[in-house]
Amino acid sequence: MSGISDVARLAGVSKSTASRALSGSGYVSERTRIKVRAVAASLGYVPSSNAASLVTGRTRNVGVVIPYLHRWFFAEVLEGIQSALLERGLDLTLYDANPGTDGRRRIFEDFLARKRFDGLIAVGLEPEDHELERLLMIGRPLVSVVGSDADATVIGIDDDDAGRRATSHLTGLGHRRIAFVGGGSTARWASVDRRRLGGYLAGMAEAGLAEHTQHVVSDVSLPGGYAASVDLLGAARTRPTGIVAVCDEVAIGTIIAARRLGIRVPSDLSVVGIDDHEYAEMFALTTLQQLPREQGRLAVELLEAELGGAGEPRRVELSARLIVRASTGPVDSRHSVFSSDPRPGIDHIG
Amino acid sequence: MSGISDVARLAGVSKSTASRALSGSGYVSERTRIKVRAVAASLGYVPSSNAASLVTGRTRNVGVVIPYLHRWFFAEVLEGIQSALLERGLDLTLYDANPGTDGRRRIFEDFLARKRFDGLIAVGLEPEDHELERLLMIGRPLVSVVGSDADATVIGIDDDDAGRRATSHLTGLGHRRIAFVGGGSTARWASVDRRRLGGYLAGMAEAGLAEHTQHVVSDVSLPGGYAASVDLLGAARTRPTGIVAVCDEVAIGTIIAARRLGIRVPSDLSVVGIDDHEYAEMFALTTLQQLPREQGRLAVELLEAELGGAGEPRRVELSARLIVRASTGPVDSRHSVFSSDPRPGIDHIG
Repeated sequence: MSGISDVARLAGVSKSTASRALSGSGYVSERTRIKVRAVAASLGYVPSSNAASLVTGRTRNVGVVIPYLHRWFFAEVLEGIQSALLERGLDLTLYDANPGTDGRRRIFEDFLARKRFDGLIAVGLEPEDHELERLLMIGRPLVSVVGSDADATVIGIDDDDAGRRATSHLTGLGHRRIAFVGGGSTARWASVDRRRLGGYLAGMAEAGLAEHTQHVVSDVSLPGGYAASVDLLGAARTRPTGIVAVCDEVAIGTIIAARRLGIRVPSDLSVVGIDDHEYAEMFALTTLQQLPREQGRLAVELLEAELGGAGEPRRVELSARLIVRASTGPVDSRHSVFSSDPRPGIDHIG
Repeated sequence: MSGISDVARLAGVSKSTASRALSGSGYVSERTRIKVRAVAASLGYVPSSNAASLVTGRTRNVGVVIPYLHRWFFAEVLEGIQSALLERGLDLTLYDANPGTDGRRRIFEDFLARKRFDGLIAVGLEPEDHELERLLMIGRPLVSVVGSDADATVIGIDDDDAGRRATSHLTGLGHRRIAFVGGGSTARWASVDRRRLGGYLAGMAEAGLAEHTQHVVSDVSLPGGYAASVDLLGAARTRPTGIVAVCDEVAIGTIIAARRLGIRVPSDLSVVGIDDHEYAEMFALTTLQQLPREQGRLAVELLEAELGGAGEPRRVELSARLIVRASTGPVDSRHSVFSSDPRPGIDHIG
């Protein structure tokens, strides 16, 4: 069994820093905290006080409330949570809370109230107001991976920053006509998607393009991105040269639509996503990488800290890494000006 | 609350037939059984004896052992299981038994032995021998959705038949050069995939093409199908005119590869899958439809019957429905003969 000294040695920090990083008490930089935790996780090391607290919990069980199982991000987070719980000898009770279903109503009205778990992890949950009340009434430690920030610890990437950096990547390549695709197809849309759009708007403003933003509404899914992009890309004269997609599934839908329409990626169209989805490599997709499995594992670690009394509710924002593949490139000189079709509010740059 | 008479009325059968169909005791045709159960499920009706048995079980919890969460079929089955359990007020403990992982070893060695469930549902599990022993030693009712047939009730489609009908659909359209793509990339490959290949071989033999079969090995995934198809379709002279894919993910990978290579679907290449995946519509994919959510729900119903003492281990094979979309069409007359390149074992027909 690995000890704290192994963790410290492999992470290249002192034992006391490693200990602070793992307990969450005392100052340690975000970068060090993540590194130490990643090393600890890879060694299967569990800080003894925290381990004891979870293991002596009444149920030896953690509840996971998750709205979708069939989307890549959610499945990955769930796999990360499961693997971290298995290492600790803890069961996982699944609450698949598909929005708008009878099952979701039952989960919030009946199942959660039974409290058959020591703590809860909510993944990508955007609880309706009355659901939020019920979550808080349960009185068990709660960690959220993306989604609502209620009164709980929340893990996620910095979505504003991810949207902004995806946009700056394209403006840096000379693109001026850049659309944001995805989100907004329902009245209540996920806060992470809204934040990514906000980052895009900020990135456009930084490049002096605040007057030239375009948000194309779509379902946040591969077919949703495909359908929206077929419409968007069909009109040659107003076609953007760059697209920031709300996530990789939407970005891949856009690339498939472009191929279908005979539009070459990246010479006619650059596409950037956010995720690093399992299909990203296959589509040579440039993306801001988030690591959902690691987020799931970290959720278990933070829940453990809260159960051990060591944690305070807080916000942990991870930084997404830009991975440049072949779906983005310099803007083609033929496309470097706005359409010669004069439209109100569109300047001609070139 | 709906009663047995509502179920009988809506299913168009007598009360006693409905009762037999739900209890699993006494003769009733497969078609009627499925219909009655679907109606009962849609009404949220639970036969009282069975309901009592599960509800008074010691744990009010069902364990689900599943090897993958990020593949469409598995996520859909899991969602079906969860919704049926929620209706019955039962918890779901998830055991994500990714093949070859430490987590899987722990599940089989430690977690299952705790018996913190009234019964188990195994989804697509191909257990190693020692795992099988452990599953049987647990002494709890077990229902399998696809995968191993051990000593348990097994639900699935008739995979031989699905492979055969997919193949016959293409031979009926005049195709002669038809390859089967998928499976076989690891020594232990899933029995359902082997059975689908068997169905393809039978379908080819029925059309007098037993000498002209071709199995292209690939990972059973969208990128796997893509990679294998880029190789297969790159060689124009030996290119098949029809492809039977082991599942829709592989079929969609093939269509994406074809588009990339400028091969038109279906005029140059017909592609048929098995699943009716959520992306099938978007790719206009002809497929043999299976309904994994329904399989998940049925697993809960059959587990319930076993817990009530009403069930005997048995095999339930559902029939997959052929859905013809635009990815398959008559063979182009230019392609209706085998390559003029003489290869050993390939006859010239036409």
